[in-house]
Amino acid sequence: MSSQPSLPLGFTASGTTCGIKASGKPDLALFVSDRPAASAGVFTTNRVCGAPVIVSKERVPSSVARAVIINSGNSNAATGEPGIADARAMTAAVAKQLDCHEEAVFVCSTGVIGVPLPMATIMKGIPTGIEALGASDQHLLAAATSMMTTDTFPKLTSVDVRVSGGTVRVSGACKGAAMIAPNMATMLGVVLTDAALTPEQCDQALRFGVDRTFNCISVDGHMSTSDTVLLLANGANPIELSPEDFLKVQAAVQQVCQHLATSIIRDAEGADHFVTVDVQGLETRDQAYRIAKEIAESALVKTAIAGGDPNWGRIVSAAGYANVEFDTAFASLKINGVQVYLAGTPVRFNASELSASLKSKRDVALEYSISGGPCSGTESVRFWTSDLTQEYVRLNSEYTT
Amino acid sequence: MSSQPSLPLGFTASGTTCGIKASGKPDLALFVSDRPAASAGVFTTNRVCGAPVIVSKERVPSSVARAVIINSGNSNAATGEPGIADARAMTAAVAKQLDCHEEAVFVCSTGVIGVPLPMATIMKGIPTGIEALGASDQHLLAAATSMMTTDTFPKLTSVDVRVSGGTVRVSGACKGAAMIAPNMATMLGVVLTDAALTPEQCDQALRFGVDRTFNCISVDGHMSTSDTVLLLANGANPIELSPEDFLKVQAAVQQVCQHLATSIIRDAEGADHFVTVDVQGLETRDQAYRIAKEIAESALVKTAIAGGDPNWGRIVSAAGYANVEFDTAFASLKINGVQVYLAGTPVRFNASELSASLKSKRDVALEYSISGGPCSGTESVRFWTSDLTQEYVRLNSEYTT
Repeated sequence: MSSQPSLPLGFTASGTTCGIKASGKPDLALFVSDRPAASAGVFTTNRVCGAPVIVSKERVPSSVARAVIINSGNSNAATGEPGIADARAMTAAVAKQLDCHEEAVFVCSTGVIGVPLPMATIMKGIPTGIEALGASDQHLLAAATSMMTTDTFPKLTSVDVRVSGGTVRVSGACKGAAMIAPNMATMLGVVLTDAALTPEQCDQALRFGVDRTFNCISVDGHMSTSDTVLLLANGANPIELSPEDFLKVQAAVQQVCQHLATSIIRDAEGADHFVTVDVQGLETRDQAYRIAKEIAESALVKTAIAGGDPNWGRIVSAAGYANVEFDTAFASLKINGVQVYLAGTPVRFNASELSASLKSKRDVALEYSISGGPCSGTESVRFWTSDLTQEYVRLNSEYTT
Repeated sequence: MSSQPSLPLGFTASGTTCGIKASGKPDLALFVSDRPAASAGVFTTNRVCGAPVIVSKERVPSSVARAVIINSGNSNAATGEPGIADARAMTAAVAKQLDCHEEAVFVCSTGVIGVPLPMATIMKGIPTGIEALGASDQHLLAAATSMMTTDTFPKLTSVDVRVSGGTVRVSGACKGAAMIAPNMATMLGVVLTDAALTPEQCDQALRFGVDRTFNCISVDGHMSTSDTVLLLANGANPIELSPEDFLKVQAAVQQVCQHLATSIIRDAEGADHFVTVDVQGLETRDQAYRIAKEIAESALVKTAIAGGDPNWGRIVSAAGYANVEFDTAFASLKINGVQVYLAGTPVRFNASELSASLKSKRDVALEYSISGGPCSGTESVRFWTSDLTQEYVRLNSEYTT
């Protein structure tokens, strides 16, 4: 990772205040490519989804993408047909400024649910946002900052990838701490690269990366109505990519997505611990994923970690209801490197020492593995989650309607 | 329901202190039929299950059941082969006292995971438990009390059913507040009737009842390693049952199971609200169940209720990720009788009045319905859950290893 995240060639960005947020904080982000870009997107599978998801989803994959407009402060979700018209109008206004077709513009919104967008405010803000566009690190930072809702820090990163003909760059920004804030609807991510990818390569690289990163995080297991991750590849760096080079770019997309996704967990509201759940030794990735997700989403596992309690019984029993037909006689668990359960049997360990390590460190490592029997194999999954604290409950039970 | 729960004919019970619990509270319960009874059981589907589950599961359905022995304070789970031998030894000791085959005895254990049972203590306690057996209401109450772990009150009930030839009785006791206490492994229920049922009828009635009651409650979504519900029907009341009478008995079994299951939710640790989730208008019961379960288990829904926040966005978005292909344009929601969302659109309502009603009442009613479009129909499900409070997190993050 570069220490100072930068935009890829041919991209500009801006972050401005148009006035959606009562706080007066920045609430309008723009990402623009100076030429048509290949693009792909992945979206929430929630039946109840925001209008921007409906509009943007129709426009991927594409080879003519020019821009992404994002507002924070209002999610334009559960707003019916008028909400869809508003989302389209936002893209048309950006397209007019850029002199392109509105189909070349994606839209994302995050914030309160069920309230119509203040369209006059947004339409007035768009020309200002276009004027503010620039290619510096500060412009990328401003755009990432304008996407924030309850986030406590902006989330952005960039990676330079050496390919056979030179170096291409993959950069990204996101917002969210899962659907944890009252009425908020939530995770948005944008990944940009100057590599020359086809729309199919965009789609493949994005799905590969998202499956292993954004789809492997959970704060509270509540799937939001607005989750969107977009990838734009504009080929401003015209190096021709060999199949091997493409895999390097795909790995960089995954690296960028992982940085962004884990930033969300590090920013999870009320959380005291950052928990990495590694599940190994399954026959299929899906089996490993199911086990990792059940462990990561168990309220009992998450409260135990909040309390610094090396309560392995909660972890192995969560694995037990993941609907994977393994034999418990081959199951083992380490907490922060300490073996607590081996081949289906409790192991004697120094509980007070392990508890002290859980209490003193922010990062927690859970390693669960299957070493034989049915469903065993070589597949693994890494999943990230936060702990469940009284502060989380306090924040999410505040009356805000 | 009778105001004072009573045992059916031909059954005795006892609750005694054998010394498993350091607190000195009662920890050994016995339920005994004076003649061979038809029986059925449903058990946790967790791959990681307690030794008593393994042993009891092999013995249902049966027509020769005589007794159930239950200890609290130690779940005999994650204890390997020696744990299974201990569970069998408990049933053999009871069988010896009753002069029957050990296959006629069921065993359940609840309490700490991963610690060998104190077998000398239990073996000494069994004859005392047998001596204490009696048929009075106090004996049933003592048995229900001896099953408790973190429960704050004993859970028991009985129902008299008028059938064509007279009256039969269905009685039950259970323990548990879902898997909420540190290292506890958890829900156990016993249902007894003097009706003359076949093992097949037992199985049918129990599955029908449990599917609609014990399988429709959730405190924290963590499936325990010990969940067991048993039904014994001894025919001490020899009335021959018509098919219609059988349905009445089945309804009584459901009624008993519902009383016991909802008692668990009323006793959920740290909870301030008892929440009934009604989902109606789906094509299949499974679809309604999936939606009800996602709403009931959403941490965001549960924290909103804890805070008295009529946050309908969280509820309709939880329904949206239940993997049911309904059309949101036909979805509606009432909270405590107030329409907040109708045909996919927000409805204006008095939020402060509804919030006051949520704050002042312990019982909360959520009514979610689909009125047309794909997946619509006449099936419904009722599900019960508790809210998620800071107190729940405090209790479950206490260091106890």
